[in-house]
Amino acid sequence: MLKATIDADILKESVDAISALVTECRLHTDENGIYTRAVDTANVAMISINLQKEAFETYIATKGEIGLDIAKMKNIFGMIGRDQPLTLDLPEDGQKLKVSFEGYRYSITLLDANTIRKDPNPPNIELPGKVILPGNDLNNAIKAAAVVSDKIALGIDSNAQTFYMVAEGDTDHIRREFGKSEVTSLNGVEARSLFSLDYLKDMGKVMSRAAEVEVSLGVDHPAKFSFAIAGGKGHVEYLLAPRIEAE
Amino acid sequence: MLKATIDADILKESVDAISALVTECRLHTDENGIYTRAVDTANVAMISINLQKEAFETYIATKGEIGLDIAKMKNIFGMIGRDQPLTLDLPEDGQKLKVSFEGYRYSITLLDANTIRKDPNPPNIELPGKVILPGNDLNNAIKAAAVVSDKIALGIDSNAQTFYMVAEGDTDHIRREFGKSEVTSLNGVEARSLFSLDYLKDMGKVMSRAAEVEVSLGVDHPAKFSFAIAGGKGHVEYLLAPRIEAE
Amino acid sequence: MLKATIDADILKESVDAISALVTECRLHTDENGIYTRAVDTANVAMISINLQKEAFETYIATKGEIGLDIAKMKNIFGMIGRDQPLTLDLPEDGQKLKVSFEGYRYSITLLDANTIRKDPNPPNIELPGKVILPGNDLNNAIKAAAVVSDKIALGIDSNAQTFYMVAEGDTDHIRREFGKSEVTSLNGVEARSLFSLDYLKDMGKVMSRAAEVEVSLGVDHPAKFSFAIAGGKGHVEYLLAPRIEAE
Repeated sequence: MLKATIDADILKESVDAISALVTECRLHTDENGIYTRAVDTANVAMISINLQKEAFETYIATKGEIGLDIAKMKNIFGMIGRDQPLTLDLPEDGQKLKVSFEGYRYSITLLDANTIRKDPNPPNIELPGKVILPGNDLNNAIKAAAVVSDKIALGIDSNAQTFYMVAEGDTDHIRREFGKSEVTSLNGVEARSLFSLDYLKDMGKVMSRAAEVEVSLGVDHPAKFSFAIAGGKGHVEYLLAPRIEAE
Repeated sequence: MLKATIDADILKESVDAISALVTECRLHTDENGIYTRAVDTANVAMISINLQKEAFETYIATKGEIGLDIAKMKNIFGMIGRDQPLTLDLPEDGQKLKVSFEGYRYSITLLDANTIRKDPNPPNIELPGKVILPGNDLNNAIKAAAVVSDKIALGIDSNAQTFYMVAEGDTDHIRREFGKSEVTSLNGVEARSLFSLDYLKDMGKVMSRAAEVEVSLGVDHPAKFSFAIAGGKGHVEYLLAPRIEAE
Repeated sequence: MLKATIDADILKESVDAISALVTECRLHTDENGIYTRAVDTANVAMISINLQKEAFETYIATKGEIGLDIAKMKNIFGMIGRDQPLTLDLPEDGQKLKVSFEGYRYSITLLDANTIRKDPNPPNIELPGKVILPGNDLNNAIKAAAVVSDKIALGIDSNAQTFYMVAEGDTDHIRREFGKSEVTSLNGVEARSLFSLDYLKDMGKVMSRAAEVEVSLGVDHPAKFSFAIAGGKGHVEYLLAPRIEAE
């Protein structure tokens, strides 16, 4: 059971974050809020996202699991105006989620949660290198890298105390370096891993709206991108597997 | 013979309204203004449009019939600036319409009116349900419906005294209801018919610019959409045939 | 050797002007500035462009020739913000041009200048008809012509003392006339030549940003379009061969 009212922008933001990786997901509800964890079909990227009940204007829910067609929700939310309250209503054992906004009543048939991939277990990994920077700077560097290559290396240079992104094309390369003064914080622990820009481009668009993104890195390890949504009443974590750096 | 000057925006608006349904039409001129009535190739939708001579800055015309390539006119008018006067000049028995604006002189060879479908006769039908609402609200509801289906039902609920639009998709449905307080006027006579969104989407774009659209409905009957153009010196009427509601 | 800093907008403007005709070029440097002259693959249009050292914030260069992939530079410059300083750095005998802006360091492998077409010799022609007008007016007339045809005639009517552009379609034609009061200057020498809109459309986009473009015309002769860039510290000249006017 779920009965809640939320600013449509917050729900859009959350749906956009999920749809960067998957087209459907299992959404979990309980009395404290909603959350989902999903991995893309190629097992390369994972999203964990939650919205606390404080992110909602009103919120009542029991423990439950909902199968959501995220692609469809992204579509329907494209037509909602900004700053509109939106109401979600799912009765106990209901098969249809009712979404109301601006005089519209939209009824969505849920997916059978059993047909959706089970929640992945978050891997237990140490990522000692940390940098916090504006999401927009991160996204711009990702877009610049995409002009010359389909891969990007993210790293921390412990000597220079910089966070850097490097993309090597066949003939060109591009490098963006952030010194300590350009980022919110940087712990300076040496790190470097290579990532596919396919995934990062979609994530970058979502992250560009975050004032601060914490990037956690290791050496040839996954990268973790953490940022707040819903004015701090919600949280997104992207985990992205590295690519092998061919020489 | 036609010799007239008109604000380019008004002519654009009129051409857009016609081009939502047909690519060519017979335009009639007389001393009181211009008008056309045309039906789309599938005989599903009809437009009647007129511009009174008061909609023009200057206007002189004799009784006549012009074959116009509406698609071409839409194209050429795409490049005219706003609020520019535009002059139309067609000599008696002329085969070319001269259009002048902003230092441009554009000469359009007319179509032979005999090769264009004859003016349809407007069907004699009673559509007792009436609602008047902003064109933008109507268009938004049409766009919302198009996300889940290719058909939309428009109706008036005489009990609830509401005007409603409903679209049923394979798994989802969406409903938009307008109470009496949300519309300019509603006579509350029971009505409901189903329409193809193919036509309504194009009409909706045109109607979205109208402050008020009068919608006339019956039970499994056509819908009529009437609205003013040219600041009230012109008028458009769309008539749309219903689709059979399959159960 | 080249080491220079320049407003990114000026470099973008220059790259756009070149890329309207060619995808690669030989860029010449010397102590006074940079310049290039290139002809398109079909030998129909030629560009001569220069940026004086005064167009740069800082500028040091020796005499040299650089093979540039213009299409690639257009791509990479698409992501630079406005009014940002951009640094170019090419060591003596270097094979890579380093471009730095906004914390990015971009390394471009140069093309072997010997693989690029040699600089064309500018033909020695007299074009006695001259008109100077806003680039935006010129571009709008080119776009209007493109709606009805793929060719445009540019001419000066010595009797009417007007500059005109005419496009003849299969059934329609469009004419734009500029009297003396509408242009900055017009010498009124009779001229008329026909040109392909394929080339003019791309040139027109570039010229639309110029406050004044000097057009030089003859009778069935090429047209020359000259305009300033970089606030007068640089100059572009397009030369376009005429088409034969078939009757």
